[in-house]
Amino acid sequence: MHPPGAPAAHKGRGRGCVVPGTLFLLFAYLAYLALGTGVFWALEGRAAEDSSRNFQRDKWELLQNFTCLDSHALDLLIRDIIQSYKDGAHLLSNTTSMGRWELMGSFFFSVSTVTTIGYGNLSPQTMAARLFCIFFALVGIPLNLVVLNRLGHLMQRGVHRCVQRLGGTWQGPAPARWLAGSCALLSGLLLFLLLPPLLFSHMEGWSYLEGFYFSFITLSTVGFGDYVIGMDPSRRYPLWYKNIVSLWILFGMAWLALIIKLILSLLETPGGTCSCHHHCSKAD
Amino acid sequence: MHPPGAPAAHKGRGRGCVVPGTLFLLFAYLAYLALGTGVFWALEGRAAEDSSRNFQRDKWELLQNFTCLDSHALDLLIRDIIQSYKDGAHLLSNTTSMGRWELMGSFFFSVSTVTTIGYGNLSPQTMAARLFCIFFALVGIPLNLVVLNRLGHLMQRGVHRCVQRLGGTWQGPAPARWLAGSCALLSGLLLFLLLPPLLFSHMEGWSYLEGFYFSFITLSTVGFGDYVIGMDPSRRYPLWYKNIVSLWILFGMAWLALIIKLILSLLETPGGTCSCHHHCSKAD
Ligand SMILES: [K+]
Ligand SMILES: [K+]
Repeated sequence: MHPPGAPAAHKGRGRGCVVPGTLFLLFAYLAYLALGTGVFWALEGRAAEDSSRNFQRDKWELLQNFTCLDSHALDLLIRDIIQSYKDGAHLLSNTTSMGRWELMGSFFFSVSTVTTIGYGNLSPQTMAARLFCIFFALVGIPLNLVVLNRLGHLMQRGVHRCVQRLGGTWQGPAPARWLAGSCALLSGLLLFLLLPPLLFSHMEGWSYLEGFYFSFITLSTVGFGDYVIGMDPSRRYPLWYKNIVSLWILFGMAWLALIIKLILSLLETPGGTCSCHHHCSKAD
Repeated sequence: MHPPGAPAAHKGRGRGCVVPGTLFLLFAYLAYLALGTGVFWALEGRAAEDSSRNFQRDKWELLQNFTCLDSHALDLLIRDIIQSYKDGAHLLSNTTSMGRWELMGSFFFSVSTVTTIGYGNLSPQTMAARLFCIFFALVGIPLNLVVLNRLGHLMQRGVHRCVQRLGGTWQGPAPARWLAGSCALLSGLLLFLLLPPLLFSHMEGWSYLEGFYFSFITLSTVGFGDYVIGMDPSRRYPLWYKNIVSLWILFGMAWLALIIKLILSLLETPGGTCSCHHHCSKAD
């Protein structure tokens, strides 16, 4: 995530105006983070406690079943397994090609690096690959931004052309712009966030909400890696599925970037930090 | 990662020019991804094979030690442990507060979400928290961008002021700009990428290169999650450390975003896709 260069928005300001504005902004930012902290803590804390208690219970049951394991040996075993799991998810005898350093997995890793999604289901273990990864990202991330900019521009131009056609036949440009804008928003929402979960729930066996969560976390480039496509070894993934998902990531990221830019302009417009009339809307 | 809105760069173009440019761009993008795929495959494939063989050997040794476990039971056990690990890294009796859904962990999760780093060492397990996470990110990501924009702007203004002062006393504005620019680049490199690994290697016990890799992967918002600060239960982390790291993430992301913007402008300037003289450098 890199700031969509909007420093032009600050041009019209007096000098003494920036420091309180920045302080206010930082305060709002911290307050927002505090809100998130509280809600996540409340929502997840209890569930995590339950899950922890369940795991401890399972562990003791397991110890009763397998009398040769004592608690210390089991803890060591668990630590080893987790370490090996972090080193690469190829522990169980059968893993899909997406979860291994093979052609498909390496390609998927490259995509996840340059898009800055960084699922982390695979991560480089050798120092050579790590150093290469840094230089690869240093050029790859801007290159990916160029591609996303271009795709976003093409999408915007498509919408713009619709506005012009509608504006000619319809009741003038302003309502046509509103109509086209909301149509673009809705069709993007449908195409990139509401329909793909159906495909994912069919191909991955996730629930619709899980697929929706995965879609948003992917396209916003957060990429926690708790859900990653193509990782279930008990399923067969056709090639068209991986290609469709790649295209979806590319176009969906461009679309969601436009949406986030829109929210960004809404956040920066109302002059909450300082009175700023020079809002730059050169993007339109 | 969202495109630093640079659609103005396309303004000066003829219409017929966009399609071949876009095709060329997509081709270059795919070629770059293919390069990454090949190198990662070559570098990691062998290491992963070795690691997989080691793990299989350890597994068989373990089976010989613990005669009550058969291969199938062990596979089931491994699967259970990995599932529980994914559900939250609170398996081992002692975990740090950063790795649990407590105050510090929830705050760290909020930061990792709005910055789109998304380490994934913690991820929400309840559907309520997941849905909240989506709305939290939808406003938090633009808000974080506003903050980063502001910080980047303040940094740029600091450099600009240095240029003006130097330009007055020195040999004119052009060499002063070069000098200040390279000073800013070098001091940022030192402050955000070269010195922090020393702190991390002291506090986390990583090697210098591991700390450097963590720094870059964090500030570029890729965030694989293979290295996360404050996760080693055998270490004590003072409070100032977590605060310093938060500040480092904020300022470092703003700085690296400026660098990536610079590379982006270098990638877009030479007219590789189309002759484009209207390059927008309004940021300066
Ligand atoms: K990320
Ligand atoms: K990530």
